Amino acid sequence: SSHKKEYEQLPFHYLLPTLAVTAPCSLSCLVPTLTMVNETQHSCSASSSSKSDGGSSSGSESSKDSSRCSTPVLDADRHERLREKMRRRQDAGDKWFSLEFFPPRTANAAVNLISRFDRMGAGGPLFIDVTWHPAGDPGSDKETSSMIIANTAVNYCGLETILHMTCCNQTRDDITGHLQKAKRLGLKNIMALRGDPAGEEWEEEVDGFNYAIDLVKHIRNEFDDYFDICVAGYPKGHPEAESYEADLRHLKEKVFAGADFIITQLFFRSETFLKFMKDCQAIGITCPIIPGIFPIQGYHSLRQLVKLSKLEVPQEIKDVIEPIKDNDAAIRNYGVELAVSMCRELLDSGMVHGLHFYTLNREVATTEVLKRLGIWKEDPRRPLPWAVSAHPKRRVEDVRPIFWASRPKSYIYRTQEWDDFPNGRWGNSSSPAFGELKDYYLFYLKSKSPREELLKMWGEELTGEESVFEVFTCYITGEPNKNGHKVTCMPWNDDPLATETNLLKEQLEKVNRRGILTINSQPNINGKPSTDPIVGWGPSGGYVFQKAYLEFFASSEIVTALLKVLKKYELRVNYHIVNVKGENITNAPDLQPNAVTWGIFPGREIIQPTVVDPVSFLSWKDEAFALWIEQWAKLYEEESPSRMIIQYIHDNYYLVNLVDNDFPLENCLWQVVDDTFELLNSQTQQ
Amino acid sequence: SSHKKEYEQLPFHYLLPTLAVTAPCSLSCLVPTLTMVNETQHSCSASSSSKSDGGSSSGSESSKDSSRCSTPVLDADRHERLREKMRRRQDAGDKWFSLEFFPPRTANAAVNLISRFDRMGAGGPLFIDVTWHPAGDPGSDKETSSMIIANTAVNYCGLETILHMTCCNQTRDDITGHLQKAKRLGLKNIMALRGDPAGEEWEEEVDGFNYAIDLVKHIRNEFDDYFDICVAGYPKGHPEAESYEADLRHLKEKVFAGADFIITQLFFRSETFLKFMKDCQAIGITCPIIPGIFPIQGYHSLRQLVKLSKLEVPQEIKDVIEPIKDNDAAIRNYGVELAVSMCRELLDSGMVHGLHFYTLNREVATTEVLKRLGIWKEDPRRPLPWAVSAHPKRRVEDVRPIFWASRPKSYIYRTQEWDDFPNGRWGNSSSPAFGELKDYYLFYLKSKSPREELLKMWGEELTGEESVFEVFTCYITGEPNKNGHKVTCMPWNDDPLATETNLLKEQLEKVNRRGILTINSQPNINGKPSTDPIVGWGPSGGYVFQKAYLEFFASSEIVTALLKVLKKYELRVNYHIVNVKGENITNAPDLQPNAVTWGIFPGREIIQPTVVDPVSFLSWKDEAFALWIEQWAKLYEEESPSRMIIQYIHDNYYLVNLVDNDFPLENCLWQVVDDTFELLNSQTQQ
Repeated sequence: SSHKKEYEQLPFHYLLPTLAVTAPCSLSCLVPTLTMVNETQHSCSASSSSKSDGGSSSGSESSKDSSRCSTPVLDADRHERLREKMRRRQDAGDKWFSLEFFPPRTANAAVNLISRFDRMGAGGPLFIDVTWHPAGDPGSDKETSSMIIANTAVNYCGLETILHMTCCNQTRDDITGHLQKAKRLGLKNIMALRGDPAGEEWEEEVDGFNYAIDLVKHIRNEFDDYFDICVAGYPKGHPEAESYEADLRHLKEKVFAGADFIITQLFFRSETFLKFMKDCQAIGITCPIIPGIFPIQGYHSLRQLVKLSKLEVPQEIKDVIEPIKDNDAAIRNYGVELAVSMCRELLDSGMVHGLHFYTLNREVATTEVLKRLGIWKEDPRRPLPWAVSAHPKRRVEDVRPIFWASRPKSYIYRTQEWDDFPNGRWGNSSSPAFGELKDYYLFYLKSKSPREELLKMWGEELTGEESVFEVFTCYITGEPNKNGHKVTCMPWNDDPLATETNLLKEQLEKVNRRGILTINSQPNINGKPSTDPIVGWGPSGGYVFQKAYLEFFASSEIVTALLKVLKKYELRVNYHIVNVKGENITNAPDLQPNAVTWGIFPGREIIQPTVVDPVSFLSWKDEAFALWIEQWAKLYEEESPSRMIIQYIHDNYYLVNLVDNDFPLENCLWQVVDDTFELLNSQTQQ
Repeated sequence: SSHKKEYEQLPFHYLLPTLAVTAPCSLSCLVPTLTMVNETQHSCSASSSSKSDGGSSSGSESSKDSSRCSTPVLDADRHERLREKMRRRQDAGDKWFSLEFFPPRTANAAVNLISRFDRMGAGGPLFIDVTWHPAGDPGSDKETSSMIIANTAVNYCGLETILHMTCCNQTRDDITGHLQKAKRLGLKNIMALRGDPAGEEWEEEVDGFNYAIDLVKHIRNEFDDYFDICVAGYPKGHPEAESYEADLRHLKEKVFAGADFIITQLFFRSETFLKFMKDCQAIGITCPIIPGIFPIQGYHSLRQLVKLSKLEVPQEIKDVIEPIKDNDAAIRNYGVELAVSMCRELLDSGMVHGLHFYTLNREVATTEVLKRLGIWKEDPRRPLPWAVSAHPKRRVEDVRPIFWASRPKSYIYRTQEWDDFPNGRWGNSSSPAFGELKDYYLFYLKSKSPREELLKMWGEELTGEESVFEVFTCYITGEPNKNGHKVTCMPWNDDPLATETNLLKEQLEKVNRRGILTINSQPNINGKPSTDPIVGWGPSGGYVFQKAYLEFFASSEIVTALLKVLKKYELRVNYHIVNVKGENITNAPDLQPNAVTWGIFPGREIIQPTVVDPVSFLSWKDEAFALWIEQWAKLYEEESPSRMIIQYIHDNYYLVNLVDNDFPLENCLWQVVDDTFELLNSQTQQ
């Protein structure tokens, strides 16, 4: 049999499992039912009788074998495999969705796609998948390769990710190499596909990889159970298959060879999928089968799709589309309508728990469908106050220095070589070495805005330090600068002010105007519910706390006055003050980290996800000062007055952080700053 | 030269150092002054200029060598050597005291001495020391040996301890063996003495240990700087020395050979000590010299002392004592007067910062002197809510299961084989195996009260489960039982109710009367100052928190009703319910520990010293059930009705613990218990 080119680049395949995958202990224990724990092992069986385990032996022996989690399991998700997550969501009656993307063609498009991952990730997809683009050197280290895009999604955007991989026309070593690399990068899921034969007339290779099933078997042989494997299903049958029934049998073989679930090719009618699913079940396919949804987004993409996939568009759809084929907006609206109604039918059937969307890397149509279906999470619960990387080695990471709060991707980049996060702590047992931030053009670290836009926001021409103060102030207030441009990002902040920071807006505006150039801050919180929409995080039923934090650049004149004022607050306020040369003034006891965000949850140990750490501050300092030059000064000509102003600030200002330890009282940091300005005023008047 | 027998068994020798021991970083940083941190190293130098470190290199390189404390340093004391503690106390202008004890003759006396360590330890001695008793097999594993008494003081009572050791008439191997054993047991300080020559006419041995200096050198040769070494000083000169000046030179040699400080023989006049100290300084002895204080406690002990030490009692003292020699109370009062006035003179001289007391294993006189001097700590600050063991390997331990709260020595005993407390956590990285509690007669684990006393308290004859309820209730209320005896201890509680538990007294009484037999409880606390006299712990300026906790035995009838009631509290209350056979019912998520005591401190990470841990609960369960039999049932004849009642409870009751996770709200555990009784009542009425 032969398949047509580029076929498997196109959209693909979810079924409701009846297979009784054994729920791990963590799950059944989370369910608030009476749970029996057999003391001689750590799994717990669900039983409603307190007597069923009568004859067990004394516990003192058995406890010798006992161990416990090294870190509190705040979020079961972080420790689960994708197939377990699916099972749990299904058991909980919780509908979910997933999103498919293809790798971009250019580095700039990659920067934009990553921003899209962040935005669409906020809606709460169970996973995303990245297609394998054979023509784009998919396993390479290029910014645009399938491998690197999937790596970025997992590690930098914290998304559960499936990497597609094709096998035909590739050597066993190539394939194994790709899989090893994927594993090394923290990828845990592979969509195993055949791919496109090299020529029109394709011949099977003896002992080669001729079908997706060969890849499935190879993965299971070489990597045991490490990867979750997904395979493609064709609700209408594969166009080249001998028959619909033969195709179903091939699918069953792929599943029995080790696939964990199926995502289907797109289809135009819910009945198509529901029949396919019943047929699958009838021949003994019991794994999840996820319907692939393709919201029609335009006339041409639909036509091309039909051509490649050999799918037939139903007449009723053609009848609507043909008359409006030149009206993109009308077609998209219709596509959304159609997708919503088909998805509702699928969900209402009771057989579908998850929907897979072919996004074509676009955002609006899919988001619209998801919102109308009510499965887009408007307010996703945060497991921790920062986005958790999805790399398996980082699953126990549960504390980070506050400094990188606005630059999480930079933090992950600079700690990616850390082999472990012992006990969920960065660098607790060994000496953490922060990777150097050598390549400021690294695509996920550089500013998303082009130079012209940055100049408009930050000033075509600076006339003094005050014009810099003005930029900071406009960023805080959201008001346009004197040339009428809003300042929506800063070298230290990719995004507009966080909701939480908005709570401090008035004070922040005041101090920035006077040259306390704030780059990071948080209010104090004394036990708000963990479900608080602004400051909440972690499981429900808990309480979250914060110490007030303020981080800013300021001139040495301000710092000198500040240090005098801080004497009055010695027992209450911890400070670190450092300049670009590394001169460092602090009252931190014993160079210990100061916990500034923590949460107390039912049945858990204390979680303290954010700390002010004196050691890591010295690495952050290098980055924070470098951003003045790399992102701002370099916008201007060398030797230009604007550039010299930024250079002067870089060379002479101090980076200051302040923590008010007395979190139950009113934040005193604004008083500290007011006192400082008052002292400066009194000195000026003398 | 020859020395008289038993001489060095007697009281001994502290000087004010002028030596500039370099203060470690932890200290200078704790002092709230402007501190410069050189980023290329972790020590910090005190400097008042923010510019003194101008030319230092960029921090990104240096941070690669950085490391940080694995656990928050809550209490600098725990990480300091004795000599550093002395220095710090002196620098802070903080007066201190220490206490000398000799090993007891019998196991019962040892149990009493350990209780004395606990009581006198509460007054805050900088250290205690235990004399070396050559006739009592001092290095053996006997309960009464010097080695084991010192071991108990360090490990079980959490006291900084000096073990005396003599060297004459002993082989090099013996001495090395003793020192190795001391090190293994966690002892860190040795008082190096010559000891008593075997015969009246003693001859020096060639290459043997003839003088204390030989032992000092040996310790330094074989153990480098591991031990802090103390040596004896004689304010009047050693009685057998050629001269006062010669004796001073010998002392200087001992110090130069590696001794860290000096404790002096007793003396009767402050001038004697002050002159000695000046003479020492004049010849270049710069280490601390601590005056040995001997409060006269009786006529005979004074006479014997004088005989052995060849000290002359001044005439003005003799004049007072002779007429009242048969009046012990009068002599002791005079002795206290005399000691207080001499100590005041010493302290007022400005040269003395610490006082060493020869207690003769008695409590009253020394405690009285210390209280009158105002250096007995009435309300010692607790570094953690439980007594911290002073073993160096346990210095990072900062979390324990709540179950052993009333049996801390048992907890230490059962975890003594743990090689490390990684990151300050018991059993975090490896599987913690709790040592079996095989020997219930282990002297520091058994009840301090004799059988007759226990029978009076717990009942000569039990008539049913209700008589057991009655015992628990009397323990809680402090009221006498029906035979007029107060119940001051229980198998699970060596001591009367804790002050904190008193807060819960009324409710506890009510529930014990009805058969909820409480053995451990704590109220919820929502952010009280760390200096709170009842619930406070840790450094000042912090806040402490607790979740309400209740642990009790109850019949299966009560437990069945309780489980029904708990369904209503499922998301709020965590429970573990277990019987002696190990049947275990819990709703703890994922067998994770639940933090029930924690503290937030300025400039620190969160400390969570107490947890409810599902795994360790199964070890505690064995101990808690065994105590019914070992301590209570065995008071009665086999087959006696009283014994069978306790045996019935042991065999059929459940051990229950409950945690109310919602610490900011009113404790709901009493409501849970009330609801349970209400349910039982309604069932009875039907």
